[in-house]
Amino acid sequence: MKQKLLNQFGKVIQELRINIGYSQEKLGEKANLHRTYIGMIERGEKNISLLNIKKIASALNISLVELFKKLEENGN
Amino acid sequence: MKQKLLNQFGKVIQELRINIGYSQEKLGEKANLHRTYIGMIERGEKNISLLNIKKIASALNISLVELFKKLEENGN
Repeated sequence: MKQKLLNQFGKVIQELRINIGYSQEKLGEKANLHRTYIGMIERGEKNISLLNIKKIASALNISLVELFKKLEENGN
Repeated sequence: MKQKLLNQFGKVIQELRINIGYSQEKLGEKANLHRTYIGMIERGEKNISLLNIKKIASALNISLVELFKKLEENGN
């Protein structure tokens, strides 16, 4: 269940990133996070913190509520 | 800005916990987290991870979307 949540969170981030037309590198720059960290998040390999969730949401121009709505639509 | 987010998140958790009638200890038991960790979260002293956000939300019988709506109402 835990890994599922991280996997689905990663998929949501990846989907939003692709929709906005950013590479992992571009999202990393916008969020002030490393490109490889973005990759790890998208693959569900990191238990991301609230501050980094906020950084990524801001870089994707989405609110935290909208971000978690997307996650809920995916089953969480 | 970062500290503000953690502070406001902590206030939301505290408010929800009190509304449901739980002590920090009770919430800790329900969420399988230590009582002192709940206190640190409520005081904005920890950058909480997604999995622990989920644990606390579940223990409070609230969805992640509803939790972040409460946070948004408080200005984030």
